[in-house]
Amino acid sequence: MKKKIGALFVGALGSISTTVIAGAFAKKLGLMEESYLTTDNDQTLKALNLVPIEDIVFGGWDIVKKDLYTAALEHKVVKEKILEATKNKLQEVVVLAGAATNDGGIIDSFRENAIEAPSRRAITTALINDIEKFKSRHGLDHVIVVNLSSTDKFIQVQGVPEYQSIENFESGLDQDSSRITFGMLYAYAAIMTKSPYVNFTPSVTVDIPALMDLMNQKGVVVAGKDGKTGQTLYKTVIAPMLKARSLKLTGWYSVNILGNKDGEVLNSPENLKTKIETKTGVLSEIMGYDNFDHQVKINYYKPRGDAKEAWDNIDFCGWLGEEMSMKINWVGKDSILAAPLILDLIRLTDFFYQKGEKGVLTQLACYFKSPYNFTNHDFFVQWGTLTDHVSQQYLQQGSAYV
Amino acid sequence: MKKKIGALFVGALGSISTTVIAGAFAKKLGLMEESYLTTDNDQTLKALNLVPIEDIVFGGWDIVKKDLYTAALEHKVVKEKILEATKNKLQEVVVLAGAATNDGGIIDSFRENAIEAPSRRAITTALINDIEKFKSRHGLDHVIVVNLSSTDKFIQVQGVPEYQSIENFESGLDQDSSRITFGMLYAYAAIMTKSPYVNFTPSVTVDIPALMDLMNQKGVVVAGKDGKTGQTLYKTVIAPMLKARSLKLTGWYSVNILGNKDGEVLNSPENLKTKIETKTGVLSEIMGYDNFDHQVKINYYKPRGDAKEAWDNIDFCGWLGEEMSMKINWVGKDSILAAPLILDLIRLTDFFYQKGEKGVLTQLACYFKSPYNFTNHDFFVQWGTLTDHVSQQYLQQGSAYV
Amino acid sequence: MKKKIGALFVGALGSISTTVIAGAFAKKLGLMEESYLTTDNDQTLKALNLVPIEDIVFGGWDIVKKDLYTAALEHKVVKEKILEATKNKLQEVVVLAGAATNDGGIIDSFRENAIEAPSRRAITTALINDIEKFKSRHGLDHVIVVNLSSTDKFIQVQGVPEYQSIENFESGLDQDSSRITFGMLYAYAAIMTKSPYVNFTPSVTVDIPALMDLMNQKGVVVAGKDGKTGQTLYKTVIAPMLKARSLKLTGWYSVNILGNKDGEVLNSPENLKTKIETKTGVLSEIMGYDNFDHQVKINYYKPRGDAKEAWDNIDFCGWLGEEMSMKINWVGKDSILAAPLILDLIRLTDFFYQKGEKGVLTQLACYFKSPYNFTNHDFFVQWGTLTDHVSQQYLQQGSAYV
Amino acid sequence: MKKKIGALFVGALGSISTTVIAGAFAKKLGLMEESYLTTDNDQTLKALNLVPIEDIVFGGWDIVKKDLYTAALEHKVVKEKILEATKNKLQEVVVLAGAATNDGGIIDSFRENAIEAPSRRAITTALINDIEKFKSRHGLDHVIVVNLSSTDKFIQVQGVPEYQSIENFESGLDQDSSRITFGMLYAYAAIMTKSPYVNFTPSVTVDIPALMDLMNQKGVVVAGKDGKTGQTLYKTVIAPMLKARSLKLTGWYSVNILGNKDGEVLNSPENLKTKIETKTGVLSEIMGYDNFDHQVKINYYKPRGDAKEAWDNIDFCGWLGEEMSMKINWVGKDSILAAPLILDLIRLTDFFYQKGEKGVLTQLACYFKSPYNFTNHDFFVQWGTLTDHVSQQYLQQGSAYV
Repeated sequence: MKKKIGALFVGALGSISTTVIAGAFAKKLGLMEESYLTTDNDQTLKALNLVPIEDIVFGGWDIVKKDLYTAALEHKVVKEKILEATKNKLQEVVVLAGAATNDGGIIDSFRENAIEAPSRRAITTALINDIEKFKSRHGLDHVIVVNLSSTDKFIQVQGVPEYQSIENFESGLDQDSSRITFGMLYAYAAIMTKSPYVNFTPSVTVDIPALMDLMNQKGVVVAGKDGKTGQTLYKTVIAPMLKARSLKLTGWYSVNILGNKDGEVLNSPENLKTKIETKTGVLSEIMGYDNFDHQVKINYYKPRGDAKEAWDNIDFCGWLGEEMSMKINWVGKDSILAAPLILDLIRLTDFFYQKGEKGVLTQLACYFKSPYNFTNHDFFVQWGTLTDHVSQQYLQQGSAYV
Repeated sequence: MKKKIGALFVGALGSISTTVIAGAFAKKLGLMEESYLTTDNDQTLKALNLVPIEDIVFGGWDIVKKDLYTAALEHKVVKEKILEATKNKLQEVVVLAGAATNDGGIIDSFRENAIEAPSRRAITTALINDIEKFKSRHGLDHVIVVNLSSTDKFIQVQGVPEYQSIENFESGLDQDSSRITFGMLYAYAAIMTKSPYVNFTPSVTVDIPALMDLMNQKGVVVAGKDGKTGQTLYKTVIAPMLKARSLKLTGWYSVNILGNKDGEVLNSPENLKTKIETKTGVLSEIMGYDNFDHQVKINYYKPRGDAKEAWDNIDFCGWLGEEMSMKINWVGKDSILAAPLILDLIRLTDFFYQKGEKGVLTQLACYFKSPYNFTNHDFFVQWGTLTDHVSQQYLQQGSAYV
Repeated sequence: MKKKIGALFVGALGSISTTVIAGAFAKKLGLMEESYLTTDNDQTLKALNLVPIEDIVFGGWDIVKKDLYTAALEHKVVKEKILEATKNKLQEVVVLAGAATNDGGIIDSFRENAIEAPSRRAITTALINDIEKFKSRHGLDHVIVVNLSSTDKFIQVQGVPEYQSIENFESGLDQDSSRITFGMLYAYAAIMTKSPYVNFTPSVTVDIPALMDLMNQKGVVVAGKDGKTGQTLYKTVIAPMLKARSLKLTGWYSVNILGNKDGEVLNSPENLKTKIETKTGVLSEIMGYDNFDHQVKINYYKPRGDAKEAWDNIDFCGWLGEEMSMKINWVGKDSILAAPLILDLIRLTDFFYQKGEKGVLTQLACYFKSPYNFTNHDFFVQWGTLTDHVSQQYLQQGSAYV
Repeated sequence: MKKKIGALFVGALGSISTTVIAGAFAKKLGLMEESYLTTDNDQTLKALNLVPIEDIVFGGWDIVKKDLYTAALEHKVVKEKILEATKNKLQEVVVLAGAATNDGGIIDSFRENAIEAPSRRAITTALINDIEKFKSRHGLDHVIVVNLSSTDKFIQVQGVPEYQSIENFESGLDQDSSRITFGMLYAYAAIMTKSPYVNFTPSVTVDIPALMDLMNQKGVVVAGKDGKTGQTLYKTVIAPMLKARSLKLTGWYSVNILGNKDGEVLNSPENLKTKIETKTGVLSEIMGYDNFDHQVKINYYKPRGDAKEAWDNIDFCGWLGEEMSMKINWVGKDSILAAPLILDLIRLTDFFYQKGEKGVLTQLACYFKSPYNFTNHDFFVQWGTLTDHVSQQYLQQGSAYV
């Protein structure tokens, strides 16, 4: 696998993106001894000899205008010591003007670096151009486009003509239809340039019939959606445990408090709805029934910063109907948890794409809260699916890579 | 599988035993609508058509002298309403005099109903006689002996001659060697009568070379040890999650507070040590390293009664060495969690024994904190081992029982 | 103090009211050994020889139609055993048709037992009549009217003419002005009949200039508002502790989950706002600054029932700006906490009224989240105000009642 | 109050001492904007115009040999940035050889810088000399000796002749009696040099009849013991709240986990006992009864470092005997919480001493877990005692200092 690859992030100045890139640079400089990548630590995945993270060329788009070093400093996620050591390299990372629709798909106040273009069609042309230029400038075989932008407003897919067929979508672009969100524009540009596309956000982007059809037509791969970093991760581990022990779930109340930009965006009910959708679906599927009270709340609470603190109340009944409970208090740093998953996804997506796989990479379900085309939410079933897929398709007896 | 079976409990008047039996009677009377047995609710296990719990004849031994109804009332675990409805049946359950060694293997003050016998040999003769009589009185094909007694003092197995061979053990019985604990006497009696034996406690009983050899000689089956009901259960689910996400464990501090007799016994350091042993072993094996601070504390706290409340502090590092944490507060009722596991174990042990399996039933590892002959502590690996074993050995395509 | 008194509850079938009355009856029958009344247990208050709770005649109004026994059973707060023992007495308690405005001041679906009257004036006439009849029927010197109804919608007091003067209020009654809420009608009726009035809810009732003027004119006493039962109680104890230690508060995030009717009503944003107002005011006053993030959330979560579970995150800085935190998880049963406070308030209000006090009883501030005419929220300052008032006005040297 | 004063710390290289001194220097340099001293922030105490902390000369004794900068760096409590800025001044702080008895009063491995002296008498002579030299070298009017050393082993005071009279104590010094602990030697030296003495540890030092008599004879002042920094602080605030609401305490289970040297020392049962004594006494006195289960556990858990995390389970009953609970999870940094209290104590002790007060300063009870000669543990009663004492003795109308 000698190909040279790049990664372009939608939302390149956000806290996740800057944490990924600063960390990758820190690792190159030997400032992070331990590898926190599962693709490095798990025997099966390690055997694939995936692209070294030091060899990935990073870049991206953003509607905010500053350099990566400055942005990372403001996010207060990565320690100053690390940022100082990687300052030069961070400042060199290319941040292109971002796609901003004029319809409020994203919060308007942030759009100081938007692509100036008269219509959605013109924006996609610009994005496609961006990708091609990035590839040629760095001599890349291909790039992976990863959506790391803020959660978009909730949208209904069914019944919207623009979403249902390639033709409708294309004419929607031409007519600058406000139903086409900025997130879809990036997905479209990725597909048109045959770039693997990963949606780490809960927003609807590639998951509309029009773009799924286009993806199949072009033979690209996609993975998504909504990174399973914290609360939903342990939810999809504990629920199967209750199930395996025949403990009857009566309620699960989850609250999240966080103080970063993600939290601010989610203070808006329309954006929150998108997020809540991907967070609430998991339990009924796992338990096999839904007569329990499942609630997920997200509140912006400034003192937390990037740390996302969660409190879960799990109520269940056992033998003779007796009530018991489990409470969880999780303090996970959002971007810190996400960063290694992004790199795992880039490496694995690249590998499967190079191997000729096509369409939705369902074997990557374990990375997502709401995996495309994969209905089982049990984390260990998902994890087993990935390792089995790798072992059976690409490894010989045990773990030697074929 | 038309055989008629019984279950004899060591510690028949304890809170677990009384909760199992009262619950089984309640179910017979239609007082518990939901079944909390995994052997009923899981599609794979259900397909085995195991013995209905209504058909099991219950009995046991205890060194306390009272009837089961009175004992259950005192434990305050099962609701009074249920106990009133099952009073007659509870009072009829046979409780035989228990084995009590004169060497403090158990707390002395409780021995008001001990087998009067001059030596350990004589006690085993009495126990064997008890089992045979119970079988013939109720017309049973076989009985399952389940150890539900209080945790025994810590003992070292290595280097003790009586534990190393059948011959030494036999002459130890003859010479009334104080190294042979009361728990071993029951295990010996079970094996000699070809009764499957389940050790739900952390005490060393059948797990000495002498009794393992004897078990093989006699062709009996055994399962153990120490029921995985609460804290260790979720520990063996969450640790694999951290592992699969490459989060580096730096410490896990667990404290348990409980106010029942089990808690009182564990206030004694020698008995506590036995329990702590089975509780602390699990993490290093799962994580694959042991440079973290793992602590397990158990404190008797009267207001809790049978409820066992646990508090866990899980400290771990992620990307760039950033520290994060997960805290768990579990309120599980000890006997309520244990009861359905006991019934699952009786049903499955009976099934595998009838099917001709021999020796340690390693496929039952998911039920135990410290499973005999099974080194993997990951709960879902253990659970998969059971369901795979059943599917592959006993079910045809899907789930129809062969 | 030989006077005979009664208590009339607005919301007589609610969980607080039924818990107060069932408990008072249980105490009379000797079913509650311990007294949980501070007016019984505190040496200073005890010395006042307040009216025995056994001698209070209870009654009330409700827009729901059922008897008290049935209502109490449905609330599942008081144990069935107690309810069976007090069944006859509970069924005899008079529950009169309640005031229901036609403007949604309360949730409409509950109004099956509303006073049939063409206007607010007519309703107040009916309520005044109810009070007089209740007094004469039971030979009472006076009754205390206690508002225990569900939280009303948020209203703005300033600028509404009807609230500003007695005259405007009176003509508002005549003209059936929709600005006059049902809660104000009860307060008006209480004042007009010279009945002491206690507002245990966060709703605006007597706290408008018009009714405060009327109260002064009539020489009645009032106390309120919003019982300080749980989260706000400990908030007003812990905040002064931080203050006294110079620890700098940076944030306090409070969430409440509850599953009773109160919780359902608070799911409606307009009603919730009323509650949140009284809950958020306390911290800035105590700390002496307000540059911290204070949030209070309330969510309806069915499995809790009457139990109100709270989770508080208290973030603060100390020496050298170091961050520390305190988290609280409170499980308080709402009606159980409220009931003894109601009885304390009835007994104390009665006493002060008989002693000739007039107007707002500010010395009762410790019972309320948002005490009328008392700006200090520090619980121990409030408590000291009550005991000092009692000692200085009514007790001689030490604690003998004058 | 123009006098020039110094402070000598027993355990000068410990984490509390280094945090006090580094912080004081940081404040001088303007690196800590906010003052975290109650003596600065409370209006009453502020009015006393206490000695500015910038003017206090710091020094101390320790049995470890290193400079204060190095020690502070190792404790990882004060941020490196602050330590770099104050490095020179920290390195200049005088650390004298410490008193180490040959009987294990302290953990032996740490004694690399012990006073070489043939007997306890010789040690006290050395300590007295140290104090006098420190005073004359810096031109001080007096010094305050503050005990900040590790918790000593538990000792019984009653019945030990050396503790009962000055004569016995003096001859014990001459005869090098092993009953006289190293902590008592410092207290003796302080008294003999007429230096106010503050015991911030739970160890028995000045609180034996012999030294109390000596203190009275010499006219010195003392304050102690065991700083009320965290768990006991909030315990003495919440218990009075439960009491004032007539909620009946049934149990209070407290566990502390900490990973600093204090934690290591407390892993030794004999030292732990001393600490537990001062921590468990407070509840019964406040509640007025003791039929509840009060437990306090302390465990060394490495990942915590200087942070002391506590978990409290508070179980109580209310109206109709219903059970409720409050749980607290406190994360307080031990030295950060202690540092400002030490400075408050130095400033206040100095003031009262200069004003001519004598003996135990009972008005400082609010600073201690087990205050000398003050039986009331209610924090706000203690706090009121201090502010009342100051207002009544030293301030005119309101808060102007006389």
